[in-house]
Amino acid sequence: MIHPRTLRVDYDQTTGVVCVVGSELNVNLNRSAPPSSRFFSVKCTYSVQYSISSSPQQTSHLSPIPLNGNSVLLIRMSRASQHENDSKLSVRYYGESKEVLGRAVLHLTAVEISLDVDADRDGVVEKNNTNKGSWKWGPNGHGAILLVNCDSEWAYRKKPDREQDSVSKVSDLKDMSVMVLRTRGPAKLPEGYKLTMHISQGDAESVRVFRSRISQTKNNTLPEKLFYKYFVKDYPLVLSSEVLSQEVPYVGGAAEMTFYVEGLRFPDQDFSGLIRINLSLLEPIATGLPETPIFTDTVALRVAPWIMTPNTLRPVEVFVCSTSDNYQFLKSMKNLVAKSGYKLKICHEYMNRGDRWMQDEVEFGYIDSPHHRFPVVLDSPRNGELLDFPYDELLGPDFGYVTRAAQRKDVSSLDSFGNLEVSPPVTVNGKHYPLGRIIIGVAFPTATKGRNMTKVVQDFLWAQKVQEPIALFSDWLYVGHVDEFMTFVPAPDRKGFRLLLASPDAGYKLFRGLHNDGHGQAKLFEGLGHEEPVTVDEILNDGGLQAENNYVQSCVDWNRDVLKRELGLDDQDIIDLPILFKLVVQDEETEYRAVAYYPDMVNMIVLGKNLGIPKPFGPKVNGRCALEAEMCSLMEGLGLSCTFIDDFASYHKLLGEVHCGSNVRREAFDFKWWNVEM
Amino acid sequence: MIHPRTLRVDYDQTTGVVCVVGSELNVNLNRSAPPSSRFFSVKCTYSVQYSISSSPQQTSHLSPIPLNGNSVLLIRMSRASQHENDSKLSVRYYGESKEVLGRAVLHLTAVEISLDVDADRDGVVEKNNTNKGSWKWGPNGHGAILLVNCDSEWAYRKKPDREQDSVSKVSDLKDMSVMVLRTRGPAKLPEGYKLTMHISQGDAESVRVFRSRISQTKNNTLPEKLFYKYFVKDYPLVLSSEVLSQEVPYVGGAAEMTFYVEGLRFPDQDFSGLIRINLSLLEPIATGLPETPIFTDTVALRVAPWIMTPNTLRPVEVFVCSTSDNYQFLKSMKNLVAKSGYKLKICHEYMNRGDRWMQDEVEFGYIDSPHHRFPVVLDSPRNGELLDFPYDELLGPDFGYVTRAAQRKDVSSLDSFGNLEVSPPVTVNGKHYPLGRIIIGVAFPTATKGRNMTKVVQDFLWAQKVQEPIALFSDWLYVGHVDEFMTFVPAPDRKGFRLLLASPDAGYKLFRGLHNDGHGQAKLFEGLGHEEPVTVDEILNDGGLQAENNYVQSCVDWNRDVLKRELGLDDQDIIDLPILFKLVVQDEETEYRAVAYYPDMVNMIVLGKNLGIPKPFGPKVNGRCALEAEMCSLMEGLGLSCTFIDDFASYHKLLGEVHCGSNVRREAFDFKWWNVEM
Repeated sequence: MIHPRTLRVDYDQTTGVVCVVGSELNVNLNRSAPPSSRFFSVKCTYSVQYSISSSPQQTSHLSPIPLNGNSVLLIRMSRASQHENDSKLSVRYYGESKEVLGRAVLHLTAVEISLDVDADRDGVVEKNNTNKGSWKWGPNGHGAILLVNCDSEWAYRKKPDREQDSVSKVSDLKDMSVMVLRTRGPAKLPEGYKLTMHISQGDAESVRVFRSRISQTKNNTLPEKLFYKYFVKDYPLVLSSEVLSQEVPYVGGAAEMTFYVEGLRFPDQDFSGLIRINLSLLEPIATGLPETPIFTDTVALRVAPWIMTPNTLRPVEVFVCSTSDNYQFLKSMKNLVAKSGYKLKICHEYMNRGDRWMQDEVEFGYIDSPHHRFPVVLDSPRNGELLDFPYDELLGPDFGYVTRAAQRKDVSSLDSFGNLEVSPPVTVNGKHYPLGRIIIGVAFPTATKGRNMTKVVQDFLWAQKVQEPIALFSDWLYVGHVDEFMTFVPAPDRKGFRLLLASPDAGYKLFRGLHNDGHGQAKLFEGLGHEEPVTVDEILNDGGLQAENNYVQSCVDWNRDVLKRELGLDDQDIIDLPILFKLVVQDEETEYRAVAYYPDMVNMIVLGKNLGIPKPFGPKVNGRCALEAEMCSLMEGLGLSCTFIDDFASYHKLLGEVHCGSNVRREAFDFKWWNVEM
Repeated sequence: MIHPRTLRVDYDQTTGVVCVVGSELNVNLNRSAPPSSRFFSVKCTYSVQYSISSSPQQTSHLSPIPLNGNSVLLIRMSRASQHENDSKLSVRYYGESKEVLGRAVLHLTAVEISLDVDADRDGVVEKNNTNKGSWKWGPNGHGAILLVNCDSEWAYRKKPDREQDSVSKVSDLKDMSVMVLRTRGPAKLPEGYKLTMHISQGDAESVRVFRSRISQTKNNTLPEKLFYKYFVKDYPLVLSSEVLSQEVPYVGGAAEMTFYVEGLRFPDQDFSGLIRINLSLLEPIATGLPETPIFTDTVALRVAPWIMTPNTLRPVEVFVCSTSDNYQFLKSMKNLVAKSGYKLKICHEYMNRGDRWMQDEVEFGYIDSPHHRFPVVLDSPRNGELLDFPYDELLGPDFGYVTRAAQRKDVSSLDSFGNLEVSPPVTVNGKHYPLGRIIIGVAFPTATKGRNMTKVVQDFLWAQKVQEPIALFSDWLYVGHVDEFMTFVPAPDRKGFRLLLASPDAGYKLFRGLHNDGHGQAKLFEGLGHEEPVTVDEILNDGGLQAENNYVQSCVDWNRDVLKRELGLDDQDIIDLPILFKLVVQDEETEYRAVAYYPDMVNMIVLGKNLGIPKPFGPKVNGRCALEAEMCSLMEGLGLSCTFIDDFASYHKLLGEVHCGSNVRREAFDFKWWNVEM
């Protein structure tokens, strides 16, 4: 859209004017006419187009036309000038008897200016996209994309690249969005005119712009191997939180100047993610007076959100901790991961310092743009002994890092990322969530007290927008994590997955069946050494345990109802797993909270079609664990293979299981986040 | 929309269940069946409706039907119970040979619960509006409205009512939104069940809820005279930033309990204005365990924005200051206001302490809802000697007060509200602004330094949303206010108004015409005593002054282009007023900024069709001031009457004029802000 500019013209003077191709100059003829003017005429060189508003009449110096109060002269130029002032236009003013009262002469210089980004999201910076100044979600949307430069080009002595205000290595440019300033015009701009790039105070906290000094190429992006020919000093900083406006050089002729735009902040409660960068042509006035912007071109970019990966995506790497007491567990995990064909990464004791809860310290996700994509770890404010692992071991070239700092007093067990999961893609009442929905656990909304996930992390998760979170009730659990009662597994039918829920009712039904079939004396926890075995009948006769499990079932059911509603699930999309809990008094409080009675099978690791499930040590029937048999029977129909992993001593007794003790980095979605309909 | 609740049922037990009318209970029959169950049957009293999911079959204890993995029993109740447990439902489970394996019995109590607000915006709290939980803009929109309780019921020893957490006078209830809890059911709820009202932590900063103890009436709102029969203690505080969740009494039978919702904060950068209030029915579990919310009803309310009133709205009161030196000015203003038929309010010297800039300290606006509307003054962080006026003189019953605190160092002359104006309603490229658009002045976006309006005030203005602001360039002026170069006057044609702009070009054209007509020796500033008269020819021969005015014209033109674009104006909607400026060096800086050369006629007061215009003291032709004559001729065509007010010594010489020295409180728009299309 063309925004006309009002141009002042003095009669009996020659005025030098710069006109940007594609823009329009408006001269208010009446206001600038000599007093008593009644007619006017216009003449110009072929390179100039003009028209008169509210007058269909043509005019030339041979045929003046009447001047009225609203006569506006509209001037355009269709191509860039070769030389300064190479185009001319003159206006003559006439009195009542067509005597000449005055003459205004314009010497015009036309320039082409276009600030360009990849507004159509195809990885190439096209020229002057008409939508480049705005941003729209969806497959028919537009607007460029920006990554937070949260990886580190340096594997040693590292910090996230966004924390330094220079290009730390030339390879760092790949993490930035290319922006091109295309200009065409005379060898230099008329005296005093200049180009300025600028951002608002608000946007300046979120973005930095570097310029490439490397000579103007016709290509938008340098071939990768060329990167390494150049040096860091070739990329001076143009805009930052310190410098909101800076002159950029004008290069004569047809020129392309490359800029690199670096995102500094993820979307958050106070930042939508949208930023704008402007390029203005300034007209000089006089010393002591600010130059006037006479043309401004604007591009819009949105910072890519941090995206989580559900169990249905293909694994890349599995992470577990090695501790002094988990050799057997580690061996089982190695076998499972090897069998599944993925990479196992072991976090050794010098780094984990005995903290085995790999699930809780970090959440793996990624950021994506048409030009680049890389994994990003979200570091929990939990800050256990695994504290240094994400920064020291994960952050590196093309591996980003983000965290949210919380006050120690605001952090609870619910801030561990066993309490942060994500569903597979779902459609709810016609609304698509092609990247699924984030799931966290908190206290009941009606609770007058209770634990919560800390506000800074919740704000961050909600602000990413593309995986709109769901808050479940997890404060009924001693540890308080959603992964203690739910998970998702892939399925060949229906919505492509099943929701698995821990169900004491299903557990009691199974045990009652065993009793009815004469297996009431079968024992749980057999052969575990330090654990006292318990018979099926002892469990069934324990009225207190039954009451506790009724309560647990009602807590899970409350969440079941929320999940059905918020994920658009039917009962057929949900599988109840036979798991019992028991209540324990939580430290010095008078409140009771739940822990798993036997290894909590829902707390599994999902590696494609292979499930690594906590070995439940259930009652044996004909030599086979009845709980394992039930689990296998429930999963087999989905084409899933169950591997039971003994985590009893090293995880279960410490109130966690296989899922709590592992983490999986997965492949990104094929679906592009900018195609989400908002 | 009905969100079903999963209900746990034990066989061989009787379970007491509370069911909210309109909700649905789902019993997972298979999960709660005795092992080996193959068939089931259901029987119930007439007050209960049930169906079986995925089964079209009917069942009774005489004709059991097969049980499968997904058999879910759906239970509804259509009317409230008279007595606790007055409805019954039983399920029987059968084995392979139809032998009975178990029986589950439910004793049901139905209650009706509806938390209601005026979601259809007609001033009446209707029952259970299906849209009450969400908020939508526009004439087909819905969602209740909330006022910030920013007036003071007390005229003396006052503070805004929102600053105290009790109902300060019963009349205070009129500023609040009525919310009604309607319940119907047995005399009391089954043991341990209770009702709880709750809000989120985020919303709690923005809202307070009081309850009326006054007995349940069938009317939603008390007749006004009844208000005064009751006492403040009859309205206990239910929810606040300290109490996010509180039990509310259940009254048996058909009951209506009235609540009053009070807004505490205007929309701002960190607050959209939308809040939600929830009412849950809690089910008891056991001591030490949190009660489970088994039904939640939610209402949405949006805080009314602060709305400004353009010159085209009818005036109510005119405010001016009385100072030791402005007797003549005051007399002229009195006459004009009396002639126009409005009220004049004089701020006396004990209050203004010599600060005459009534325009700059405050901006009048209002807040509106279907139940109540009152004026609200926005107090500028300027804080001149008029500092106490808005709080001490304006705040009172049904007169609200709002301000934004800024650091002293962040406040500049651009924070005075001569720099805050609002356009009449406009339509721009098809987008309607039925309440006009706010206009402020700042530095050029390209400037590396310059004055700005402080961020807290800008954030506030943008957050109101319904009068989306436009930022102009006003930093070229010494004082820096948009009212120094622009105003709006009503017009009978076109868009209903004209934009008036100060125009040095129009001024020079007029003076050149005078010269050409032989009036070059006519004098400006004649008879002003201390002011040296200047002839028309002296002005025309002053090349420096001409250059300065060329610059001023280009600054005004830059704003003209922005206003044309952002208000959708044509040149015919704009009138250029003949006004000259001059540049002066701004304190100790090397920068030049503009002040009016003679009284700045655009800085006028608009009272309906009467304009109070600074008397320009222009050159006289045949005994009449040529500037006044031109002004009258330009305005007469619009049916406007010009009164020229001598403000030379007492305002103009102090760098302000009539508009700077006055303020007008105007009537509200007929258009309701919630009907704006967003």
